[in-house]
Amino acid sequence: MASPAELAAMRRAIELSRNGASTTPPNPDVGCVILDATGATVGEGWHERPGRPHAEVNALNQAGERARGGTAVVTLEPCDHTGRTGPCTQALIAAGVARVVVSVADPNPVASGGAATLRAHGVDVELGVLADEAASANARWLIPFRTHRPFVVWKFAATLDGRSAAGDGTSRWITGKEARADVHRLRAAVDTVIVGSGTVRADDPQLTARLDGVPAGVGGLTGVEAATGDRTVDQPLRVVVDSAGATPATARVRDDQAPTWIATAEEVGATPDGRVDLTKLLNQLYERGRRYALLEGGPTLAGAFWRAGLIDRVVGYVAPALLGAGPAALADAGVNTIDAAIRLDVTDVRMVGADLRITATPREHRKA
Amino acid sequence: MASPAELAAMRRAIELSRNGASTTPPNPDVGCVILDATGATVGEGWHERPGRPHAEVNALNQAGERARGGTAVVTLEPCDHTGRTGPCTQALIAAGVARVVVSVADPNPVASGGAATLRAHGVDVELGVLADEAASANARWLIPFRTHRPFVVWKFAATLDGRSAAGDGTSRWITGKEARADVHRLRAAVDTVIVGSGTVRADDPQLTARLDGVPAGVGGLTGVEAATGDRTVDQPLRVVVDSAGATPATARVRDDQAPTWIATAEEVGATPDGRVDLTKLLNQLYERGRRYALLEGGPTLAGAFWRAGLIDRVVGYVAPALLGAGPAALADAGVNTIDAAIRLDVTDVRMVGADLRITATPREHRKA
Ligand SMILES: NC(=O)c1ccc[n+]([C@@H]2O[C@H](COP(=O)([O-])OP(=O)(O)OC[C@H]3O[C@@H](n4cnc5c(N)ncnc54)[C@H](OP(=O)(O)O)[C@@H]3O)[C@@H](O)[C@H]2O)c1
Ligand SMILES: NC(=O)c1ccc[n+]([C@@H]2O[C@H](COP(=O)([O-])OP(=O)(O)OC[C@H]3O[C@@H](n4cnc5c(N)ncnc54)[C@H](OP(=O)(O)O)[C@@H]3O)[C@@H](O)[C@H]2O)c1
Repeated sequence: MASPAELAAMRRAIELSRNGASTTPPNPDVGCVILDATGATVGEGWHERPGRPHAEVNALNQAGERARGGTAVVTLEPCDHTGRTGPCTQALIAAGVARVVVSVADPNPVASGGAATLRAHGVDVELGVLADEAASANARWLIPFRTHRPFVVWKFAATLDGRSAAGDGTSRWITGKEARADVHRLRAAVDTVIVGSGTVRADDPQLTARLDGVPAGVGGLTGVEAATGDRTVDQPLRVVVDSAGATPATARVRDDQAPTWIATAEEVGATPDGRVDLTKLLNQLYERGRRYALLEGGPTLAGAFWRAGLIDRVVGYVAPALLGAGPAALADAGVNTIDAAIRLDVTDVRMVGADLRITATPREHRKA
Repeated sequence: MASPAELAAMRRAIELSRNGASTTPPNPDVGCVILDATGATVGEGWHERPGRPHAEVNALNQAGERARGGTAVVTLEPCDHTGRTGPCTQALIAAGVARVVVSVADPNPVASGGAATLRAHGVDVELGVLADEAASANARWLIPFRTHRPFVVWKFAATLDGRSAAGDGTSRWITGKEARADVHRLRAAVDTVIVGSGTVRADDPQLTARLDGVPAGVGGLTGVEAATGDRTVDQPLRVVVDSAGATPATARVRDDQAPTWIATAEEVGATPDGRVDLTKLLNQLYERGRRYALLEGGPTLAGAFWRAGLIDRVVGYVAPALLGAGPAALADAGVNTIDAAIRLDVTDVRMVGADLRITATPREHRKA
């Protein structure tokens, strides 16, 4: 059983793991706390971004010799394989840690086996401590293993009265430039951006991540850095959900700035009404190695994703403005009465420039 | 000119004035800081509720003898008349204060003249320091003097996608019980509640302030306290905006729990299309002594209030839920294109239970 000090350390490790949230993809968010033999905290670390040391190594470096005979408390089972960095199991063994307290077992077949290796070297290992909380903090990375589809974030922008455009159809700009820059950081963190054919027809968006004006070191970058010190971005795959493949050859989403997939009903598979089967679409994206998708709308496609139960997180940019007319941010989500409303848990609210950014998780997915 | 220490003290006094916000109506929100002769803060106070000491007296009590030769920094001109409490001018003179720094002159003819009285007693008085900020913090009390109508707060409840009911019309409950209790506190703080005939027809609301379960001392009470220690509430006037006077005799809004005014086009004055003239309605409420009104909807009446420029503050309860269908919280507000959107400044965002409460002010009114 985990001691009170170990439980507190796990809570702290979960908190630390969030520091990496916008920079670690496609890697997991991991936090680690080292306690010395007396139970005092002597090291803290988190995984910052791919190619950089894992959380355990950062925490061990801080602890130094004080780790010997102590306990490592870590939100994900330590890895047992050599990727861009060495296996964490070896680092923990070399540091002389006597006990390792883990929340979530690593579902990744390549990296798993850490607990077994540690035990084989005489380290006491405890699994499953605060597993729900840790899994929820790491849902973006864990859900794809279970569902065989990318983790899906639905992003929308609307006024306080829920309009995503004015009565005459104009929508530039509902939100301010800080919110728009924030969306570009989100695009740079994901590996896939999805829109419906209606949005391409109406707005002809380019859907690339453009980070001009985003200060270096501010979140969302996927890790590739040019020799000059400037950061470059792995552009996400742009997916247009376009039943009949009607996206014109001149659409900006087809330019050479990023890869594009015009996902048709014929190629992906069709629903009874001849539209793109969204579950199949996501499974195929998973098979193509995609793990983290941003659904950018519009309201019709978002409604269809909700009906199919395919949304894991909501990021709403709410402008402090009122329109009193114009299309809503979300259409037919399969809900007709108040008791059937899709209920969310708000996990974060903050101002981004003059706009509000609300992050929330659908109730059913909370523990995922 | 105000010194840097006095400017800092005025900012603090404005902050203090907000502590009273939900309990001072119908009185103004006032904050006061006392600096000693060296410029050090020796007293702080705010006005808590009608019948209790004014901000200056609370701050002077804290300062005691250290106020002598010092400076009183206060967000509203000290009163010069004897109401339920004695005049603040006399308290300041008796305490030996050498200088009084004021932001906003008192527009209330009954209470004004404080600056002149202080000067006549040899006190140095400076007016207009951070007047915009202080006026904006005290807008609820100041706006009626200028506009001859009550300060109007538009309250709405909606889902994150801006729906105020589901597709089948059901809306109980969009928000949680904490948000509903918060609305009752708001009702207990205002002197008038306004709804349209459509809401009465659809929901048959009672529109009284019910504070069951609201802990004693939590904001919103207008001050009457029963001898038992239980709080009672001055019920706000219930106003139904009902052009033809069609509210049925059995409507709950007509019960004997609170006064009611069925405001018809005939009695108030009619718009060209035969509806109640809202500017005239508010002017008549002012003439009846009403200063603080809560507009509770629905969407049609709220749109008409916006078109007439009669809303001073927005309080939106946003439930972390999605519907994808159903009526919007706001209908025709006279805006057709994005550049004409009603822009707001968010002044407060907080969680009330599981719901978000967003308080905002229309841009044009900001300095009022
Ligand atoms: N405020 C925001 O955050 C935001 C974001 C994006 C867009 N928008 C606005 O949204 C508007 C466009 O809205 P929209 O609803 O027409 O566009 P949409 O949701 O982007 O596209 C809807 C289209 O997707 C296609 N589709 C393919 N498979 C589908 C499936 N299984 N389920 C549902 N749809 C499927 C359908 O057309 P086919 O079957 O013909 O392919 C459908 O009409 C634009 O005005 C845009 O500005 C707003
Ligand atoms: N979510 C929320 O916060 C909230 C709050 C309240 C209500 N609601 C919902 O709103 C729905 C009712 O909406 P509604 O829009 O029909 O009701 P409403 O806005 O309460 O009432 C509108 C009616 O007010 C009357 N009126 C009189 N003078 C007017 C003027 N100058 N301008 C505009 N209207 C004037 C008009 O009828 P006459 O001319 O015939 O008198 C008009 O039809 C209900 O379903 C209720 O549940 C939601």
